[in-house]
Amino acid sequence: MSGPPDEFAWIARGLAPLAEGAAEAFGLIDDAAAIPSRPGFDLIVSKDAIVEGVHFLPTDPPDLIARKLLRVNLSDLAAKGADPYGYFLAIAWPANYGWPEREAFARGLAEDQARFGLKLFGGDTVATPGPLTASLTIFGWTPAERMVRRAGARPGDVILATGTIGDGYLGLLSAKGLSVGNSYIQAEWLADRYRLPRPRLGLRQALRDHAHAALDVSDGLIADADKLARASGVGLEIDLDRMPLSEPAAAWLARAADRTAALVELATGGDDYEIVCAVSPEDAPALLAAATEAGIALAPIGSAHAGAGVRVSVAGREVKVARAGYVHT
Amino acid sequence: MSGPPDEFAWIARGLAPLAEGAAEAFGLIDDAAAIPSRPGFDLIVSKDAIVEGVHFLPTDPPDLIARKLLRVNLSDLAAKGADPYGYFLAIAWPANYGWPEREAFARGLAEDQARFGLKLFGGDTVATPGPLTASLTIFGWTPAERMVRRAGARPGDVILATGTIGDGYLGLLSAKGLSVGNSYIQAEWLADRYRLPRPRLGLRQALRDHAHAALDVSDGLIADADKLARASGVGLEIDLDRMPLSEPAAAWLARAADRTAALVELATGGDDYEIVCAVSPEDAPALLAAATEAGIALAPIGSAHAGAGVRVSVAGREVKVARAGYVHT
Repeated sequence: MSGPPDEFAWIARGLAPLAEGAAEAFGLIDDAAAIPSRPGFDLIVSKDAIVEGVHFLPTDPPDLIARKLLRVNLSDLAAKGADPYGYFLAIAWPANYGWPEREAFARGLAEDQARFGLKLFGGDTVATPGPLTASLTIFGWTPAERMVRRAGARPGDVILATGTIGDGYLGLLSAKGLSVGNSYIQAEWLADRYRLPRPRLGLRQALRDHAHAALDVSDGLIADADKLARASGVGLEIDLDRMPLSEPAAAWLARAADRTAALVELATGGDDYEIVCAVSPEDAPALLAAATEAGIALAPIGSAHAGAGVRVSVAGREVKVARAGYVHT
Repeated sequence: MSGPPDEFAWIARGLAPLAEGAAEAFGLIDDAAAIPSRPGFDLIVSKDAIVEGVHFLPTDPPDLIARKLLRVNLSDLAAKGADPYGYFLAIAWPANYGWPEREAFARGLAEDQARFGLKLFGGDTVATPGPLTASLTIFGWTPAERMVRRAGARPGDVILATGTIGDGYLGLLSAKGLSVGNSYIQAEWLADRYRLPRPRLGLRQALRDHAHAALDVSDGLIADADKLARASGVGLEIDLDRMPLSEPAAAWLARAADRTAALVELATGGDDYEIVCAVSPEDAPALLAAATEAGIALAPIGSAHAGAGVRVSVAGREVKVARAGYVHT
């Protein structure tokens, strides 16, 4: 088949297989999906949009764009302690996305929806004279009133971060072909971390059980810590020396002329999709044990106190951060 | 404030008021919304996207773009027999949409969400180097398993259409400044019909009570009748002489050199956002009475029979329609 695919052919061939077995979706031939009530549970809903040239590179392969779109939304579910359930997708295709690109996009969705256990429930597909633009509305479940919120951190809480921070930022530079001074293999590893976030779903049950508050880090560790502080009405201290770093990020940091500035760069770069959470000192060991059990690194990086704002320190000294993380506007 | 608004300022000032009073939305400061279970009800979800230059004109005022976006989604809820509940919004703003345009957009949402009884639950706002692109995920309720589906029309059913057909098509021409030969007042009326669909929510209870199947007409009467026929596994006969027309559309038709071609044009133009439904002959009077009660015009335009496809007739003769309605791709 040549020429740009029409909407109906694309839905039937590309998308309908992603809804197979989901009674909610009516085979994608209806105007809407119907989600039956699940007494005792709340439906957790989040919606993120991505634009070519803003959230991903024009050179990124379509299957990885699709997987990133799904994963940035799954990262929200993970931070909220929710079990993945389903999603709606709206895509605006530029004319240069023909069948091969669209099928690669669907293949990426198929791979990750199988991996993370959710199905396509519906959406819309349209044409655009502009860049590829897509939004995904994701659905998950928590037991009633058990969503882990941003508001809830308390003075005295320990602040922890999953995985490693700064790889998404260095990965974006690498993916753009800008050398960060690392070996080719490390640069590829970093670019992969930028293109494919790791939603920390393995921690969701433990977050529900123990965390007072949580959110995922998309705009940068400091910017997102600030959101948690504001929502909870507390102040946070973040010690950048305790920020967990990957081997490539640590190697990059070791070469930096100004270590403090480099740490701030990693803490404000964004695209981490790690989870920052607040837990009482009493519950921290149980959360750390659950993370170990799930194979997810979890490191204390600071604490909450009565007050406001985020105080950032390096080597015991306060560091002024002029611009708290990259802000997607 | 000058310059393009940042995401957080825009959410706090423009969007948070739209979520006021909705406990689900946590004041838009969290990563997700939480929808409590409502035993005995299904959550009906639909998602439509719009792109500047494809679904609306670059000259359309931002408040009307917002209201159209909300209304095309409400039209889906109406056709499914669902009660409006809430929505998620993703918007990609071009750089030339500053505070005044965004505030007009929010004002349009505020006006129509109050009119139709729903609230903003969450979403995402991003920048784009391309045209204004937005998607809306809408939520409604029906009693459990009572969503009016596309699949369900039966041989012998009467096919009916709400309102009038073809105004959206003539309105698009008028909005583009192309004369359709009508008076200035009629041209303005038609353009308004293009810019502001009328979701037929007043009919939702009656559709749930009586209709075997329904959908809303966005791609064109014939194209959408074809979708209903396919989903239901029946054939449809549509008599274009019975297609309900507004006074401006009837005036336009009266001047047409080829009446049959003009009728087909109106039936394939799209952007109607009227409801086409199938009902048994026994139940048709009750549905018609409910429509009268709700102040919504409802006219029989054909019938369903065993078979497949849509047979279109004018003056008792079959008309071949080469292209079954404008297809948004």
